[in-house]
Amino acid sequence: MNVLITGAAGFLGQRLARALLKRGHLQSSAGIAEPIDELCLFDVNPPAAVEVDAVLDAGANASGPPQRQSTQIRVRTITGDIRDDALLRSVIDARTTAVFHLSAIVSGTAEADFDLGWSINLDGSRALLEACRHSGVHARVVFTSSVAVYGGKLPALVTDHTPLNPQSSYGAQKAMGELLLTDYNRKGFVDGRILRLPTISVRPGRPNGAASSFASGIIREPLAGEPAQCPVDAQTPLWLLSPARAIEALVHGYELPTEAIGIARAINLPGLSLTPAEMAQALTRVAGTEVAARIEWRPDERVERIVASWPAAWDTSRALTLGFKPDADFDSVIQAYQSEM
Amino acid sequence: MNVLITGAAGFLGQRLARALLKRGHLQSSAGIAEPIDELCLFDVNPPAAVEVDAVLDAGANASGPPQRQSTQIRVRTITGDIRDDALLRSVIDARTTAVFHLSAIVSGTAEADFDLGWSINLDGSRALLEACRHSGVHARVVFTSSVAVYGGKLPALVTDHTPLNPQSSYGAQKAMGELLLTDYNRKGFVDGRILRLPTISVRPGRPNGAASSFASGIIREPLAGEPAQCPVDAQTPLWLLSPARAIEALVHGYELPTEAIGIARAINLPGLSLTPAEMAQALTRVAGTEVAARIEWRPDERVERIVASWPAAWDTSRALTLGFKPDADFDSVIQAYQSEM
Repeated sequence: MNVLITGAAGFLGQRLARALLKRGHLQSSAGIAEPIDELCLFDVNPPAAVEVDAVLDAGANASGPPQRQSTQIRVRTITGDIRDDALLRSVIDARTTAVFHLSAIVSGTAEADFDLGWSINLDGSRALLEACRHSGVHARVVFTSSVAVYGGKLPALVTDHTPLNPQSSYGAQKAMGELLLTDYNRKGFVDGRILRLPTISVRPGRPNGAASSFASGIIREPLAGEPAQCPVDAQTPLWLLSPARAIEALVHGYELPTEAIGIARAINLPGLSLTPAEMAQALTRVAGTEVAARIEWRPDERVERIVASWPAAWDTSRALTLGFKPDADFDSVIQAYQSEM
Repeated sequence: MNVLITGAAGFLGQRLARALLKRGHLQSSAGIAEPIDELCLFDVNPPAAVEVDAVLDAGANASGPPQRQSTQIRVRTITGDIRDDALLRSVIDARTTAVFHLSAIVSGTAEADFDLGWSINLDGSRALLEACRHSGVHARVVFTSSVAVYGGKLPALVTDHTPLNPQSSYGAQKAMGELLLTDYNRKGFVDGRILRLPTISVRPGRPNGAASSFASGIIREPLAGEPAQCPVDAQTPLWLLSPARAIEALVHGYELPTEAIGIARAINLPGLSLTPAEMAQALTRVAGTEVAARIEWRPDERVERIVASWPAAWDTSRALTLGFKPDADFDSVIQAYQSEM
């Protein structure tokens, strides 16, 4: 089987690529482990040589994948635009039975650049689904959605029955992507799975244009000896998931039998409900008072408005029943991040 | 002010055009009656000469509009494609402060022709909103949505908090149109109002591609001495609104102050909850047993699947508070239709 990852130069994309190379297979509907023949990494940004090497190294050094040596997996990088129908149709063919659609314009950027957000997040997703439809192989498509599809007056606990009510362009684009994928699924063009991801923390690297960027920054920068600004009130509840659990969820979401999901294709993933104040306390416990003191509390109304519209916690009983795993606590999330530094 | 009606050659569009010509004005945010200078009728189908005449006649014969003679309103017909950005931007300018967006591919046709439905119902709506955004006048846009945005396991009474869960491509397209318009509204590009219309009955004319076409046919055809088939079970609950109340709702929805609506721009309109069996009983009462006996009960699984996914009734307390009016009963709806035959 060929596996396509869009947004493959991004943080989750790179990490998912490494995980799949280590694994070497994905489980099919029938519960059979299907070996991955080709991993296609699609992104508008070319993965830097060192990053491709890192992926290949990770594959070569993988310990005992159950089905085959991951070095046998062809890794193909495609640098292109997700809205390029012709390119997508040349990349997605009858062998492409697994698609992880991660490419997106992040929330803060989509809010600032209205045209770009709608173009990439809606038209790009549609072009991808069209290419899958035309390949005719009923590919499994894992689509990442977000807390940002919720908003307005929210119940304390968001359930699978809470209406989508996005209060940002990014949230509207993700909600529309969900509806689109659900219709392609209903028509039998793809086998779609929608995973609503909590805010991912701790992301390595640098701040990005996401309104939630600070949720990693206030841990990452202090640990690196740098100050970090928290642009929301210290008591703003956030809904968090570690990168490791996010990658596991993407693979698990792919491997779920289609009938286990039913007609409601979107699944709210388990997370930890924490305020920035509680995150700072966890940082103090793990790394000490001096490190945590590097967090600067500077509310920014623009960010606060977006983040405050997101739910603080959601009922994840369905996700847990389906076998998705939450993080144990945020201290261990910080420790895991430290071990990778 | 200039008023644009898209889908103006359609049944509701023609009727709305006549109503606006009779009225001669629309009320602005400040509660002031603004005279209509131009009524632009946009449709892919040219309104037939007789139909334009009918509109102009209706205008010329209108009794006492409060602001000005409706004959002073310029009526402009544009035959074109709703996806034609350049055309829309030439039609919508700084004087176009009122838009009624009625053009759509109906449910049955959108289900049968996947590409056409998505193209007209999503891309067309987006092109229209983009043209409004670029006109820079924060036009009021009335968007018609549908019972079809709901589906799946529904509560007995659908409320404003029932999640959208469309089970047809048409429903998905309308739900996405709602999200899109809501984001354009939030960004201040338009002043958007979404009216979720019940199934309109009794429509004059011929059957169309809507899955709900029978809801008019089983009254209209028997009254005309012809047989009509009911493709759904006689006990399937439907949610109905008469054409007269629908037109009143469009005008009222336009005239509501923007702050009265709030951030949830979609309003579920009042309707009558009736089964085809109850509709047949009303027809018997109004026109006799012989007429009602012309209904043939022939379930069609394709239509039944779509119609059964729609809600049977919804909580319309918000709409009633906002001043929308339901029909008194279905007998009077049939009588009103007869009086127009």
